[in-house]
Amino acid sequence: MPRWNNAAGVVVARDVDFFWDIGSTNSYFALHLVRPIVARHGARLISHPFNLGYVFRAQAYVLMDEPPAKLSHRFVDLRRWAERYRLPFRMPDAFPIKTSRVLRGALAMRRIGKEWPYIDAVFQAYWEQNDASIADYAGLHPIVRRMGVDPAEFEALSESEPVRKKLIAETQGGMARGVFGAPTFFVGDEMFWGKDRMEFLEAALATPSP
Amino acid sequence: MPRWNNAAGVVVARDVDFFWDIGSTNSYFALHLVRPIVARHGARLISHPFNLGYVFRAQAYVLMDEPPAKLSHRFVDLRRWAERYRLPFRMPDAFPIKTSRVLRGALAMRRIGKEWPYIDAVFQAYWEQNDASIADYAGLHPIVRRMGVDPAEFEALSESEPVRKKLIAETQGGMARGVFGAPTFFVGDEMFWGKDRMEFLEAALATPSP
Repeated sequence: MPRWNNAAGVVVARDVDFFWDIGSTNSYFALHLVRPIVARHGARLISHPFNLGYVFRAQAYVLMDEPPAKLSHRFVDLRRWAERYRLPFRMPDAFPIKTSRVLRGALAMRRIGKEWPYIDAVFQAYWEQNDASIADYAGLHPIVRRMGVDPAEFEALSESEPVRKKLIAETQGGMARGVFGAPTFFVGDEMFWGKDRMEFLEAALATPSP
Repeated sequence: MPRWNNAAGVVVARDVDFFWDIGSTNSYFALHLVRPIVARHGARLISHPFNLGYVFRAQAYVLMDEPPAKLSHRFVDLRRWAERYRLPFRMPDAFPIKTSRVLRGALAMRRIGKEWPYIDAVFQAYWEQNDASIADYAGLHPIVRRMGVDPAEFEALSESEPVRKKLIAETQGGMARGVFGAPTFFVGDEMFWGKDRMEFLEAALATPSP
């Protein structure tokens, strides 16, 4: 498990920034694929929930407007990824969904110290269990309750001005760094887009930072 | 080098259909990446030159209209692929180019029995040596002459009605099979799109055909 020394010879863990949206199929895969990589390299995965729909609207990009042949091949390809990596993925019946509550919920759970278990739970609910109820608080409440968090506290924090501003800041901050889709990763200034670039991401982690 | 028996127990090589356009950056990479795979599996690579520009126009897709952040990341990503696979790739100064003469040229060279050396030569010229002259016969003539082919015969064949019709048939036949971009591969009915799906293509070759 290599770690890198900084200029003072102190061992430092490297950060992998992970820009994700719960509405992004490929973020689901990336969440699972990136973990063994960061573990192998003693790196730290930093969550950046961001509003992919906002980014797409800024680009005038509409996924469902893709050519039918391309769209239908997406599903074939996703099934291959699920089989290859033995993930219990299934395409949700309700897609796309409004994702901002889930995203703000992650930022709220961060303040409560339970962001990663929450992320795992919402990705599992939507992308494995076909549960689109997470788009609203009614679906999120039982999830946070199981984590020992008071749903009312969670909702109030999710709707709070600082959390709203943080989601906007993550989204605009991502765009300022060049994010145009999800998943997007950064190792330092190096950007990696897509679930299918893990090999390059790992190579960047295996290279000492300058 | 596994080969598969057909129902009569006769050993048969499997075919990998390769839909390519000289104007497709990713077809350049795929041409190099697919070869060791077909060799490992004793498969046969079947060339299908097709008019990607026609397909894109049918889809109203314009590469250069992509969001600037996405376009600029494409170049970063291509550089990574070139380094990873030690390919002397360079982005041509003239891009995109009109590709129909190169494509018909491949079909002409097929009739002369020299399609693959021609394909290698035109991809090398455009994607390694920044030579956009191949878009016209002036640039193609020296290439075929080096292969012992009379340039006048090559040009006449390339411009002939059967070759023109064949390119249209390949393009429309590809679209009928679901081709929406390049490179696209088929192993039987299974379609693979992109230079970054070689792992899945190889898995298909490792599976006995039904």
